[in-house]
Amino acid sequence: MTTLNPIAIEDLVRRALMEDIGPGDITTEATIPADKQCTAVMLAKEEGVVCGHPLAQAAFRTLDPTLTYEILIPEGSVVTPGTQVARISGNARSILTAERVALNFMQRMSGIATTTRKLADKIKYYHARLVETRKTTPGLRLIEKYAVRVGGALNHRYGLHDAILIKDNHIAVAGGVRKAVHAARKVVSHTTRIEVEVESLEQLQEALESGADIILLDNMDPEMMKKAVEITAGKAILEASGGITAENLEDVARTGVDIISLGVLTHSVKAMDLSLDVEL
Amino acid sequence: MTTLNPIAIEDLVRRALMEDIGPGDITTEATIPADKQCTAVMLAKEEGVVCGHPLAQAAFRTLDPTLTYEILIPEGSVVTPGTQVARISGNARSILTAERVALNFMQRMSGIATTTRKLADKIKYYHARLVETRKTTPGLRLIEKYAVRVGGALNHRYGLHDAILIKDNHIAVAGGVRKAVHAARKVVSHTTRIEVEVESLEQLQEALESGADIILLDNMDPEMMKKAVEITAGKAILEASGGITAENLEDVARTGVDIISLGVLTHSVKAMDLSLDVEL
Amino acid sequence: MTTLNPIAIEDLVRRALMEDIGPGDITTEATIPADKQCTAVMLAKEEGVVCGHPLAQAAFRTLDPTLTYEILIPEGSVVTPGTQVARISGNARSILTAERVALNFMQRMSGIATTTRKLADKIKYYHARLVETRKTTPGLRLIEKYAVRVGGALNHRYGLHDAILIKDNHIAVAGGVRKAVHAARKVVSHTTRIEVEVESLEQLQEALESGADIILLDNMDPEMMKKAVEITAGKAILEASGGITAENLEDVARTGVDIISLGVLTHSVKAMDLSLDVEL
Amino acid sequence: MTTLNPIAIEDLVRRALMEDIGPGDITTEATIPADKQCTAVMLAKEEGVVCGHPLAQAAFRTLDPTLTYEILIPEGSVVTPGTQVARISGNARSILTAERVALNFMQRMSGIATTTRKLADKIKYYHARLVETRKTTPGLRLIEKYAVRVGGALNHRYGLHDAILIKDNHIAVAGGVRKAVHAARKVVSHTTRIEVEVESLEQLQEALESGADIILLDNMDPEMMKKAVEITAGKAILEASGGITAENLEDVARTGVDIISLGVLTHSVKAMDLSLDVEL
Amino acid sequence: MTTLNPIAIEDLVRRALMEDIGPGDITTEATIPADKQCTAVMLAKEEGVVCGHPLAQAAFRTLDPTLTYEILIPEGSVVTPGTQVARISGNARSILTAERVALNFMQRMSGIATTTRKLADKIKYYHARLVETRKTTPGLRLIEKYAVRVGGALNHRYGLHDAILIKDNHIAVAGGVRKAVHAARKVVSHTTRIEVEVESLEQLQEALESGADIILLDNMDPEMMKKAVEITAGKAILEASGGITAENLEDVARTGVDIISLGVLTHSVKAMDLSLDVEL
Amino acid sequence: MTTLNPIAIEDLVRRALMEDIGPGDITTEATIPADKQCTAVMLAKEEGVVCGHPLAQAAFRTLDPTLTYEILIPEGSVVTPGTQVARISGNARSILTAERVALNFMQRMSGIATTTRKLADKIKYYHARLVETRKTTPGLRLIEKYAVRVGGALNHRYGLHDAILIKDNHIAVAGGVRKAVHAARKVVSHTTRIEVEVESLEQLQEALESGADIILLDNMDPEMMKKAVEITAGKAILEASGGITAENLEDVARTGVDIISLGVLTHSVKAMDLSLDVEL
Repeated sequence: MTTLNPIAIEDLVRRALMEDIGPGDITTEATIPADKQCTAVMLAKEEGVVCGHPLAQAAFRTLDPTLTYEILIPEGSVVTPGTQVARISGNARSILTAERVALNFMQRMSGIATTTRKLADKIKYYHARLVETRKTTPGLRLIEKYAVRVGGALNHRYGLHDAILIKDNHIAVAGGVRKAVHAARKVVSHTTRIEVEVESLEQLQEALESGADIILLDNMDPEMMKKAVEITAGKAILEASGGITAENLEDVARTGVDIISLGVLTHSVKAMDLSLDVEL
Repeated sequence: MTTLNPIAIEDLVRRALMEDIGPGDITTEATIPADKQCTAVMLAKEEGVVCGHPLAQAAFRTLDPTLTYEILIPEGSVVTPGTQVARISGNARSILTAERVALNFMQRMSGIATTTRKLADKIKYYHARLVETRKTTPGLRLIEKYAVRVGGALNHRYGLHDAILIKDNHIAVAGGVRKAVHAARKVVSHTTRIEVEVESLEQLQEALESGADIILLDNMDPEMMKKAVEITAGKAILEASGGITAENLEDVARTGVDIISLGVLTHSVKAMDLSLDVEL
Repeated sequence: MTTLNPIAIEDLVRRALMEDIGPGDITTEATIPADKQCTAVMLAKEEGVVCGHPLAQAAFRTLDPTLTYEILIPEGSVVTPGTQVARISGNARSILTAERVALNFMQRMSGIATTTRKLADKIKYYHARLVETRKTTPGLRLIEKYAVRVGGALNHRYGLHDAILIKDNHIAVAGGVRKAVHAARKVVSHTTRIEVEVESLEQLQEALESGADIILLDNMDPEMMKKAVEITAGKAILEASGGITAENLEDVARTGVDIISLGVLTHSVKAMDLSLDVEL
Repeated sequence: MTTLNPIAIEDLVRRALMEDIGPGDITTEATIPADKQCTAVMLAKEEGVVCGHPLAQAAFRTLDPTLTYEILIPEGSVVTPGTQVARISGNARSILTAERVALNFMQRMSGIATTTRKLADKIKYYHARLVETRKTTPGLRLIEKYAVRVGGALNHRYGLHDAILIKDNHIAVAGGVRKAVHAARKVVSHTTRIEVEVESLEQLQEALESGADIILLDNMDPEMMKKAVEITAGKAILEASGGITAENLEDVARTGVDIISLGVLTHSVKAMDLSLDVEL
Repeated sequence: MTTLNPIAIEDLVRRALMEDIGPGDITTEATIPADKQCTAVMLAKEEGVVCGHPLAQAAFRTLDPTLTYEILIPEGSVVTPGTQVARISGNARSILTAERVALNFMQRMSGIATTTRKLADKIKYYHARLVETRKTTPGLRLIEKYAVRVGGALNHRYGLHDAILIKDNHIAVAGGVRKAVHAARKVVSHTTRIEVEVESLEQLQEALESGADIILLDNMDPEMMKKAVEITAGKAILEASGGITAENLEDVARTGVDIISLGVLTHSVKAMDLSLDVEL
Repeated sequence: MTTLNPIAIEDLVRRALMEDIGPGDITTEATIPADKQCTAVMLAKEEGVVCGHPLAQAAFRTLDPTLTYEILIPEGSVVTPGTQVARISGNARSILTAERVALNFMQRMSGIATTTRKLADKIKYYHARLVETRKTTPGLRLIEKYAVRVGGALNHRYGLHDAILIKDNHIAVAGGVRKAVHAARKVVSHTTRIEVEVESLEQLQEALESGADIILLDNMDPEMMKKAVEITAGKAILEASGGITAENLEDVARTGVDIISLGVLTHSVKAMDLSLDVEL
């Protein structure tokens, strides 16, 4: 199973707690005695893929290191409505104060994992693998890409530094696909592949001749993609991107492309419904 | 029109740029000459409410203060597909490197404003006003609440500090609605109202008698809400919450409640499609 | 008893320790063996209200988590000179290095609580409640408002965001009390009250008619305040502010106002004398 | 005239603005048009030494770089009530939003400078120079020590790193003044003097023999200090500390000591009254 | 020419200035009038490759935005002793205060670029390209990798996230080269190559069969490397690493490997001598 | 033995871990089971002085507080190749992920301590003491100065704030050595000495007459230094600086100067070779 840099997680959680709590939780302070203990269970209220335990746990335990967080349903499992996914015990004030931050992370990440799983399953008997794009929520890329992996897809590059992806604008200025790829080849690290976006089969041909490692087929229809696959014949990795939806996803996979990238996995997240039931 | 703390904005944008760029944008560096100038236009690719100019502008200008950002369609306007909403000019590398961060903010915020406008319009001839909840994206509450205002709704409290909201768990520990409200009354600032959640008409009665300023009707059906409105007779502000959707929103408004809170405004954002066209 | 956001506290303490220690405590390093253990007691050297344990404890334990901090006199208690208020045990270097930061927090917060208690006691048989203002030390508002509560007063709004307070300048631009209050009413959250400052009984009348929830009587003498109380007749919360001192505080309370705000509680703090006696 | 590290100043001001503004200044937003311009003057409302222009200026200009801040009365000048000390022009919303933070810095720093000047003037015909202690407000040491210099005193060491100051506890563990001074001598930088605290004339003798550069006379009465000055005869710098007040300050200076350190300069600041008059 | 993320640069420079200046530059404050202007030239005092202008410029201009920084010798040029590489003009205090930070960056980066150029030149007629390793100075990887590029080498992966590099320990736990490569293949992004370290020709064979993209030849002598090149026959990229010095570098290049990685480029930097001559 | 501010250390280590790990260590995640335990030993691969345990320990334990770090060879000891200097036990993923950061700190600091020891030993029978300069790596001054102390030298001032060091440029503007020293004397703290740089025996004479505490002999040859020592006759501390190398170090010490400052101790560090052997 996949992991996360704990230092980055702590920073995210700390900011989220500061944002929600501000100077203090005045309602809890007014109504709950300082030494009251309790147990709470996190419940799935709809079907989905559980994702976000490291964040929820960090939310409770960063606010109060004496709380315990017990994982009842492991990261990445499918749950039915009513399933208890985690149990939190300890000081009642701390649990009530951290509740919303923990849920906000968990609902969003489970939402991403659930959608990803649903779409990945649609094409699981095909060669193509699903990936997300850079259309992530500002500041949360780390955990959104993680949720995509938990959902069963792979990750595209992390950002602008860890891979070359030459887009239409770069090509226009560089003076064509060939020149752009050659310029990139001169400076790229040997650990990184060069990807170039093409909009036509002519550009595809040029990309292949210039030695691009990955070719992004931008907004092509399945018919044209199929031709691209034939022309390429395994000499480059083919990524389909643009205009792909749940409806036509299988059609795209059937063309034989290697990678299908979907912005919707992260730019339009539908939260999974989870709640915290406190037993006082 | 509504504004935003510029220091908070700069911090958000700086983190988002660091996240996306990392050590550097290697593709742009390899393919675009350092002194190349260009102009780019941000285009709406679907109908919606434009929101996020302060963030998009900050994204471009924090990366490169020599860029100019011209607002073509003001914040909060409805646009049709194909409309140019902003024009950015200056160094081509800077524009291409900041593009995705600017769009990620803009698409998300316009998405929230668009949904909010759609729902607010459904009940615009009623007394009730729409507000969001604390189910916001961790770290982005500031700009999500702003987008809700741009969309035409009001804001609920910002977080745990700036208002008292006594929920079922607080009531259970405090020993009833009355005791909880009285405990809160002793410590609350005179600038802040006390809100208490009730699940039955009995609890409503108790809340009214204990002098609560706002009463949250939790998961009641329109029928029961209507009774609650009659019983309350203006002696408190009534907020409807839980189980409210686009479908039953008007039914809820019709009951005469004052405030309707909707988690969906921020927890399940559908991004508005916007793109950047670079004229090189 | 009142609590504090532990994440905000840790940040404050960390900055204070960095400020005082810099690269390292060279005197302690030169003269105290690395493994020397000791116990120290924090002593009140004058009468006052003890306040600041969470900060003092965090100062010692953030520098060295192996130290123990035992509270001997609870937060908010009145002590006589010579009373032991806390006992710290563990590594001698750590205790000596953190001593000054712990005391600097404790002396200042106890000073605020002591002054607040003294003034609050003066009017304890009146209806009016004391609050502080926004004239706090930059960066320390959180703990200064907390010390005011420990001292027995309530808190005014935290800052510019969590309540509407319309002052003379806002009124001048908006075109009068009525217009300003109406403008605020359109955008204010339902959880927040609207306060408006008035300088005359005419403005008071206008404020009442425009539906202001709270009215700040700016620099009025007790005579005029009494008239304001009569005119208002419970239709709004009345806050007296400006020119109020220890000497005339009771006169102001006697007028029947609801709230009295005092800048001196936080802008001119007299530290309470406390010291650390180390038993080596 | 004395200066301040601009990077440290910006950090302080940024934190103070975030603290006061939070997500946004809702009153100003509701009542002041976005493009309204104005001029404001900062007025002294009591006599005192003006101090804090760099902070006040940074407060206005960090929030809004288009504001202008004109110094009318230079840092360190004595003003009479009613004097205009600075003029700020530009966007009205920005000026109103930054006002309190600018004043909070200015009032506190002018308060320190005023008290320092008053006390320094008392002994200006003596050899002794006044300095502050480490009893400063956590996080604000930089600007408090600066205000002390503006007030006409010198600064003691900044913190635990930049000078050796051996106190009673260090002496007790090290096994006497001599051993402590020798231990310090072995590790101290050649740019830094070694100071040691003594409580008796015997300890003074030991400190002199061990080659201490500075000797702190702890809580001695003027009589004993005079003897200490005679015994020392210029072989070390003598610092008087403890129990010194405005009343006995001149008596202490008269003993012939070189340095007099006063905690009250920073631990119990009386703010100077300043206000901002906006001309709209 | 290569660029750097300006936001990351500003953060590095800000920290370096805070570290060196602390509360303030007391010498400059005491001896240089506040309004004194001057010009200074940065001089090479030995032969080398100039590198670090973006950092030096940021050091001067972050401290004081009114300073001008003129590049006289472009980044990456070879200079002889006595050459003027940059000219700085403006406030004398600002220039003197920022001088050491600017030089500390410039000397270190020029040192790296100079050594890299020297070694890269040794093998410029061979196919092999030089890269650095992760043995960089903590916190300065960004600018050290940049200096390596300016010196004429390529960069290896940035850190643990942007490429797979399976080392001996990973292989031992995974149960052999083949199993480790297959495990990596399942999760790796399509934009990233998989590199595996081998210590023998048997392992090389296994790496080739398992489809590794890059094979690191760990501590092999040139003889064995030559065999590895023959066996590989272009089916993978070969990286030579370990025990490579200026002396045997050409021997390694002659073997036909594709990449040679050298820790010495960054772990043992010899600063280039540069100084600032101020014309007052 | 010398210590370090633990809060500063944690900050340095946290930044270094973020830099190296980024979003996550994908190789370790792919190849090492999440619950695999192991022990690793840190080995010296060449002779040198061990330095950096507090940093290495913090690197492992900040990433994963459940790891144990056992010091086998104490800080400051000389080791021979093959010596085990530390043993780390716990989760295998955590150890492999933190390995490089721990080693990067340790290798650099041990390199500084080793060179310092070598040079300090050359002059150990002389009166003169070695110190470093401000030519340190930006951001790492704290730990580089610490390593110099561990190596057996003393430290010069930390930065621009904690001592007066009047250089040629300051003298030129101030109008001579005398004026500059007098200007400094007026403002300097009594805990700090005043140092002034001189380039001739005339300037030395002027420095002595003006009462400078420390005189830096800039780039003088041993002959001239000897004369300076005679002229000074103990009336000031003499520091030799500029053009001093391992070769002429003893000649300089022989002149009788008190302090010798060497930039090479920190500006051109040769890392000591250390490695981590993991026993899986």
